[in-house]
Amino acid sequence: MAGLQKIRFLLLKPNIQLKSISNALSTSQSLYKQPIGFVGLGNMGNHMANNLIKNGYPVIAYDVNAESLRSLENAGGKVGDSPAAIATQVDQIVTMLPSSPHVLDVYNGPNGILSSVKAGTLLLDSSTIDPAVSQQVAALAAKKGAVYMDAPVSGGVNAARDAILTFMVGGPEAEFDAAKDILNNMGKNVVYCGGVGTGEAAKICNNMLLGISMIGTAEAFNLGIKLGIEPKKLAEIINMSSGRCWSSELYNPCPGVKEGVPSSNNYQGGFGTALMTKDLGLAQDAATVNKSATPLGSLAHQIYRIMCTKGYALKDFSSAFLFLQEDKENKS
Amino acid sequence: MAGLQKIRFLLLKPNIQLKSISNALSTSQSLYKQPIGFVGLGNMGNHMANNLIKNGYPVIAYDVNAESLRSLENAGGKVGDSPAAIATQVDQIVTMLPSSPHVLDVYNGPNGILSSVKAGTLLLDSSTIDPAVSQQVAALAAKKGAVYMDAPVSGGVNAARDAILTFMVGGPEAEFDAAKDILNNMGKNVVYCGGVGTGEAAKICNNMLLGISMIGTAEAFNLGIKLGIEPKKLAEIINMSSGRCWSSELYNPCPGVKEGVPSSNNYQGGFGTALMTKDLGLAQDAATVNKSATPLGSLAHQIYRIMCTKGYALKDFSSAFLFLQEDKENKS
Amino acid sequence: MAGLQKIRFLLLKPNIQLKSISNALSTSQSLYKQPIGFVGLGNMGNHMANNLIKNGYPVIAYDVNAESLRSLENAGGKVGDSPAAIATQVDQIVTMLPSSPHVLDVYNGPNGILSSVKAGTLLLDSSTIDPAVSQQVAALAAKKGAVYMDAPVSGGVNAARDAILTFMVGGPEAEFDAAKDILNNMGKNVVYCGGVGTGEAAKICNNMLLGISMIGTAEAFNLGIKLGIEPKKLAEIINMSSGRCWSSELYNPCPGVKEGVPSSNNYQGGFGTALMTKDLGLAQDAATVNKSATPLGSLAHQIYRIMCTKGYALKDFSSAFLFLQEDKENKS
Amino acid sequence: MAGLQKIRFLLLKPNIQLKSISNALSTSQSLYKQPIGFVGLGNMGNHMANNLIKNGYPVIAYDVNAESLRSLENAGGKVGDSPAAIATQVDQIVTMLPSSPHVLDVYNGPNGILSSVKAGTLLLDSSTIDPAVSQQVAALAAKKGAVYMDAPVSGGVNAARDAILTFMVGGPEAEFDAAKDILNNMGKNVVYCGGVGTGEAAKICNNMLLGISMIGTAEAFNLGIKLGIEPKKLAEIINMSSGRCWSSELYNPCPGVKEGVPSSNNYQGGFGTALMTKDLGLAQDAATVNKSATPLGSLAHQIYRIMCTKGYALKDFSSAFLFLQEDKENKS
Repeated sequence: MAGLQKIRFLLLKPNIQLKSISNALSTSQSLYKQPIGFVGLGNMGNHMANNLIKNGYPVIAYDVNAESLRSLENAGGKVGDSPAAIATQVDQIVTMLPSSPHVLDVYNGPNGILSSVKAGTLLLDSSTIDPAVSQQVAALAAKKGAVYMDAPVSGGVNAARDAILTFMVGGPEAEFDAAKDILNNMGKNVVYCGGVGTGEAAKICNNMLLGISMIGTAEAFNLGIKLGIEPKKLAEIINMSSGRCWSSELYNPCPGVKEGVPSSNNYQGGFGTALMTKDLGLAQDAATVNKSATPLGSLAHQIYRIMCTKGYALKDFSSAFLFLQEDKENKS
Repeated sequence: MAGLQKIRFLLLKPNIQLKSISNALSTSQSLYKQPIGFVGLGNMGNHMANNLIKNGYPVIAYDVNAESLRSLENAGGKVGDSPAAIATQVDQIVTMLPSSPHVLDVYNGPNGILSSVKAGTLLLDSSTIDPAVSQQVAALAAKKGAVYMDAPVSGGVNAARDAILTFMVGGPEAEFDAAKDILNNMGKNVVYCGGVGTGEAAKICNNMLLGISMIGTAEAFNLGIKLGIEPKKLAEIINMSSGRCWSSELYNPCPGVKEGVPSSNNYQGGFGTALMTKDLGLAQDAATVNKSATPLGSLAHQIYRIMCTKGYALKDFSSAFLFLQEDKENKS
Repeated sequence: MAGLQKIRFLLLKPNIQLKSISNALSTSQSLYKQPIGFVGLGNMGNHMANNLIKNGYPVIAYDVNAESLRSLENAGGKVGDSPAAIATQVDQIVTMLPSSPHVLDVYNGPNGILSSVKAGTLLLDSSTIDPAVSQQVAALAAKKGAVYMDAPVSGGVNAARDAILTFMVGGPEAEFDAAKDILNNMGKNVVYCGGVGTGEAAKICNNMLLGISMIGTAEAFNLGIKLGIEPKKLAEIINMSSGRCWSSELYNPCPGVKEGVPSSNNYQGGFGTALMTKDLGLAQDAATVNKSATPLGSLAHQIYRIMCTKGYALKDFSSAFLFLQEDKENKS
Repeated sequence: MAGLQKIRFLLLKPNIQLKSISNALSTSQSLYKQPIGFVGLGNMGNHMANNLIKNGYPVIAYDVNAESLRSLENAGGKVGDSPAAIATQVDQIVTMLPSSPHVLDVYNGPNGILSSVKAGTLLLDSSTIDPAVSQQVAALAAKKGAVYMDAPVSGGVNAARDAILTFMVGGPEAEFDAAKDILNNMGKNVVYCGGVGTGEAAKICNNMLLGISMIGTAEAFNLGIKLGIEPKKLAEIINMSSGRCWSSELYNPCPGVKEGVPSSNNYQGGFGTALMTKDLGLAQDAATVNKSATPLGSLAHQIYRIMCTKGYALKDFSSAFLFLQEDKENKS
């Protein structure tokens, strides 16, 4: 990969200088910064693109939503006509899209990035998608001489806004420093995970375990309360014992145990049940294809799915506590 | 309860002095320590009783196993003829028994403690049992003027030997200091949980969450490996993220990730799958009686149960990782 | 057991004649029929007792509910002062109680049947309870020379009213004909299952499989509808294929597939979710004690439990179809 | 669709006559029968193709396996160079492939059927695949004027050999008679399910329910045996009660209950656990995409998956009974 790396820099250098000069007028900070393409200005993506702009990068962005584009322009970015059009103007692109089909379309569709990508371009996809799709797009990109890395994030909308996301990066190790230089502008942790797809793998494995331990915590607290133990006391004991987990300690699902978490705010904000359901669905897809047994991951997925059908889709996923609890009107 | 407390001390003081004197010959340390009855000298109980002796308490013990009694005598203890016989000689008794029926029998059976217990006696039951049974025995004890507290432990055989157990104590708060004075000789943490039964409640809730998060961790690592991520790398990422739990961090079930845990020693030692299955069975019983929904706790119970039927009963419960993994001979 | 049988008849004959004569005034049909004690006049029991009366048996009944007793008197029965009081007056008793503790109390409590039961009495318990409790009561009854058989029923309130229940009978085979003579008055099928407890065993195994296959059917129909297949068409195909089950064929949970079942009547009537939850709880208790792995039975139990917490307790258990379906207001 | 139907026949008639004449030499029976293309001569497909030949159809087949092709020639068939090559020679093609990617490749790949298919061709896909893929291929076929119908089968290798398969057919109703004419040569039941994809939908819904009720039956019988009831007696009771299902009645998983089923032959033959796992994986994929809650289907999938990892992949799926049972060496 060192060879490709070299080629990339040989190829990029002249472009960069030209572009840097042309973009230098918009902000003095951007004088020495290469422009970055950005596709996908949703709830997360718009904050991420804004943070690149704030850090002095010229950003050329695309989204299907016109309003998102206008907002980006107001923040100081430029708008491209399509992913393909952007790919002709930059040497590094970040994408943040809702699902595997969107990623395939933005990269490999009719007006996709790969239809016009320059050799040596660095492509960073922060979407949470099937790792097999990451590997597929990486292979297609490699045919064009471009480098695709998966770089999904941990952290929600607020973390995106505050540039404190964690990025889990998969792809050629030789490109990691280049990726990190960009991602550091949008997050505080950038972790190298291994070959392409392992960023997604790390994310879906983490979120599967999170999804499981949150429901487990919800069950333990509901049962404990029925058995007469005060929830704060139970939290104190569990958090010094072997049942301790991030969900019990930092994001306790039982209202009143911890300040400032969604459970103490009617389960508003946080990480929606529908999003957790989506991530656990990705884990199930990957497990099925790879013949990996995940009985609790599978059941957790189903429980969040049922929660979505019963009105919890937009509540924080810690509302599993509420879902498993007896409705007041159904007390027997 | 303050009233009972007072009565207890009024009643006990004369006894204590008499007995202390009679027992003073065995060890100079015991000069001012009240004798303690101890029923149940199994893998855990024998270490616990020994630690009381080491700390200068005269111990009068009973067990159905003659060899355990001889061993206790060698360590400096005395042997009682039955739980009932012991109850006539002491004002404080610790019990450590395998299951609810044993506890009912030792307390309420024909030669049980309650048949001859003195008013004011403090009864500390460290067995892991159904909290409803604790409450039932406590009520029977109260009729005799005795105080029963549940005080199950966290920590295994080695922790019992090294007197570093954690005790979770349920019962009248006014008696907690007296209980703590005794339990401190056998453990390093003694936590007050609430009314009688809440010690058991805390333990089974903690262990249910532990049992769930261990299988969840095993699933996440098996899936991650199939997806091409190196297990140590995955552990590093999860342990700085929201999937972090005691099982991923301090007791990782994937061989080679962490030194000195059962997974790196062929799943020998540690906490056997059969014992975890028993604890999750208690959680299920309590959940059924109390109409508490515990879908993951229930499935975790079943998975450990299946593991027991397939040869994992005596392996550490983290062998769930091994159980869910493809057998080498079955690779497809 | 043949010996006991003979003794029973030798003992009973004189009693019977005396009692038959004393009761002959109430109804001419009862001239040659032995009186029957009946404890437990709930939704099921009152119909069962009435059917014995209709068939000419003198019935002496007890219930904690005074109104139920008055209603029984209006139907031609007599009222006893307590289970113990009834036991002194008859040689055969039927009990129909809500749960294991009730059975233990009615048989073995202070005023229980066994405190005064005559040797040779036939005790038929139609309650759905833990088979281990049946065996325990049978052993206690045997000490008094009485024969206890478990005889739980299949069929609901309407089947009780119409005397078309199915009885699953466990106990000594030599007593089965005697049991059948009585039970035939309240049902149309009386099946011998084996030793005491096997009637309960058969019932809870059947109901566990029923509870599982009903949810399975609900899942298959919900998924099929989402995939665009018309539910009646799906039912036609499944019912001629390997997915066929009682739930798909005779009690389809999808509204409109079958006439005259609860799903086509807003899930009213039928077998309530709370009752199914209770039976699956018994199955789980038995499985835990007997170390039998029941992963789907366990999850089905949890799903019905969650349904109870969400307002489905009194709906027919086939409302699992509705529960798993997207709420109209939550369509995404 | 009536229009397309007409066009198809107008277009086909002349072709048919020409081809019928050219193929007439191989077998006198085929004089009036149109040739049929066949792609996929695996365990099922080779029997199906042979049955078409036996019934007088000229068959032109393709498979990646050269030996399968030679065997087909020995049976009287002809070999095509590729799916594309076959498509130029016939007006009706049957495909029987192992999975969705194979179907996409055979139809839409470089040498795929759709690259050269004639307008009016009838395409019947008997593969068990994702219904969404069926719909996707049908749409691609329609662009070429061809009609694609999904027609997955129920029944195994023996049923394929004996031409007693059941076909579940999805696609335009107007084409169903034409499809039936062909499929009747390979099966005894051909059922119309609805629009394209509903054949697959019916199959995966049926098999999901089958997979669930088989494990449920295995659990009920294992528990019943532990509770002391004789398995034949339990089968008798369940099969006259509400727990009755195809698995309990016709394919009982407990050895000795029923003659001639895999459980009475060491779980050899029948429907392998690996195949059931694959079908339940399809159901899970479809459920995830369609946001349909399938908790028991999901858990059943996981249990069969675990069975595959533990050496049950090639045993009949009713070996769930064996899997859940205590290993002899692990009896506790």
